[in-house]
Amino acid sequence: MAVLYSSRSLPEGDLKGELLKRDPTLDYRIWPDTGAVEDIEFAFVWNPEPGDLARYPNLKVIFNLGAGVEKLLLDKSIPAHVPIVRLVDRALTACMTEYVVMHVLRHHRRQVDIEANQRARKWDPFEMPPAWERKVGVLGHGVLGGDAAEKLVHIGFDLAGWSRHAKTQAGVVSYHGWDQLPAFLARSEILVCLLPLTADTAGILDAKRLAMLPRGASVINAARGGHVVDKDLLAALDSGHIAQATLDVFHQEPLPADHPYWAHPRVTVTPHNASLTYDASVAPGLLAAMADLKAGRPLANVVDRGRGY
Amino acid sequence: MAVLYSSRSLPEGDLKGELLKRDPTLDYRIWPDTGAVEDIEFAFVWNPEPGDLARYPNLKVIFNLGAGVEKLLLDKSIPAHVPIVRLVDRALTACMTEYVVMHVLRHHRRQVDIEANQRARKWDPFEMPPAWERKVGVLGHGVLGGDAAEKLVHIGFDLAGWSRHAKTQAGVVSYHGWDQLPAFLARSEILVCLLPLTADTAGILDAKRLAMLPRGASVINAARGGHVVDKDLLAALDSGHIAQATLDVFHQEPLPADHPYWAHPRVTVTPHNASLTYDASVAPGLLAAMADLKAGRPLANVVDRGRGY
Repeated sequence: MAVLYSSRSLPEGDLKGELLKRDPTLDYRIWPDTGAVEDIEFAFVWNPEPGDLARYPNLKVIFNLGAGVEKLLLDKSIPAHVPIVRLVDRALTACMTEYVVMHVLRHHRRQVDIEANQRARKWDPFEMPPAWERKVGVLGHGVLGGDAAEKLVHIGFDLAGWSRHAKTQAGVVSYHGWDQLPAFLARSEILVCLLPLTADTAGILDAKRLAMLPRGASVINAARGGHVVDKDLLAALDSGHIAQATLDVFHQEPLPADHPYWAHPRVTVTPHNASLTYDASVAPGLLAAMADLKAGRPLANVVDRGRGY
Repeated sequence: MAVLYSSRSLPEGDLKGELLKRDPTLDYRIWPDTGAVEDIEFAFVWNPEPGDLARYPNLKVIFNLGAGVEKLLLDKSIPAHVPIVRLVDRALTACMTEYVVMHVLRHHRRQVDIEANQRARKWDPFEMPPAWERKVGVLGHGVLGGDAAEKLVHIGFDLAGWSRHAKTQAGVVSYHGWDQLPAFLARSEILVCLLPLTADTAGILDAKRLAMLPRGASVINAARGGHVVDKDLLAALDSGHIAQATLDVFHQEPLPADHPYWAHPRVTVTPHNASLTYDASVAPGLLAAMADLKAGRPLANVVDRGRGY
């Protein structure tokens, strides 16, 4: 049996080293040097091309090296019996939370305005409310959303989360289902999108939903570019209904050089590095999951292909 | 007996309203309309001129409406028997912590570089280490420093604090005294200054101490401008030894229009609004302290004039 690293876009980094120092017996191969395709039982993948994974007749499990699996699910050639596991990892979660906390604070404290004042050498010590007077909404109240919400509650923010099913988390008001989305949006002065991208959630932040946010709200999107209808967000920014946006993800990445987001004075563009896959952190989890599979124990974080995440 | 609000620089805001709705019997006066000076027993002050407070023969206590008392202590005409109380307030502490957490994250995640890349339409998804690989040092491990450290530990940072005497706080390595300052500085990749300004701490961040920080360190000063030797910090920034600085406080405020900090690409200037005095938050504490004094109970947060804070 062998493990294959399969990505055309993400260099392998040092995942091999991190794995082999924990299990020197591992037969580790890196695409396109697969060796005999019959040997491959485990695949670690990031955005493979459709058909890439159908070549391995004995494949037992696919580990996606990120939280989002929407591109992988477009590949209908992956056999239905092969489970796809999405990455749930301490460092991935922690770094996403750092990103969310920083950008919520930047919007809450109007840091963009303070920096514009600095460029104009303008001293304007305006007052800011404490965090408990600021309502933050986490759209996508799952593993990542729950961790970010917990840190934001600890800092003092007034938190709500929205998800498919109701969640219980201290200090976080839970909204769930499409019926409760308008009420959730209406109270979210700072909205953080951490949803999976599925057929249901694509384009969720369109003109209609943006209009449900309170006037002067800010939007942070650290999920997928496909959640936002760009022309609607730009119109809401230009009308002043949305005060600021921070975007880490885009319909096309890298963001094209002529895209209006780059130079918009009230848009912060970050280059899809809110959170990355940290080899040293994910290696123990991958080995543990492979051991689970060999021992016949159930796998955690298996993607529900019908649900889309 | 009467209460006097005495400041030449800070407008009264709505402290009067916040106090009177809790105690409508309060005889509240605002300088210069003091009425009979013999009536004044309590003074709420912010940066009064020397001599302003010597005019009230029956003054029992001075409440400073901020955490820093260094200017008040320059006034040698304040009778030695009148206690000075410095502000310790939930909102003041919480907002300072928000400021510190945001700016530590900005330095940790190189947000200044990301914003420079945005201006250049450059897509560079560089990797950032998780917080537990980043050493943060809080210079001034008191009420404000302890609260900021607690939130930073919760996010995952590797924390140390420095203070006059050793402190015990979960997740924070305590350094104390001048002997341990070099070791504390040597481990601080991001240094946060929250010290009181005293004869001992004035100019503490000079060329010698900045050189003790690891190469590439960042400095956040939310204490007083007098802690930093500006020419030494600018030299350390220009040599590259210090990567970034965020400064909320300055030797002269407002920061003069020709000061090199304004346009320095690696300095973030904020206009001394990291944390302000929030009338609705401080009013109950002021009333409680006055009640303590009337009942003969000991006052909290009394300044040690010899120590300077």
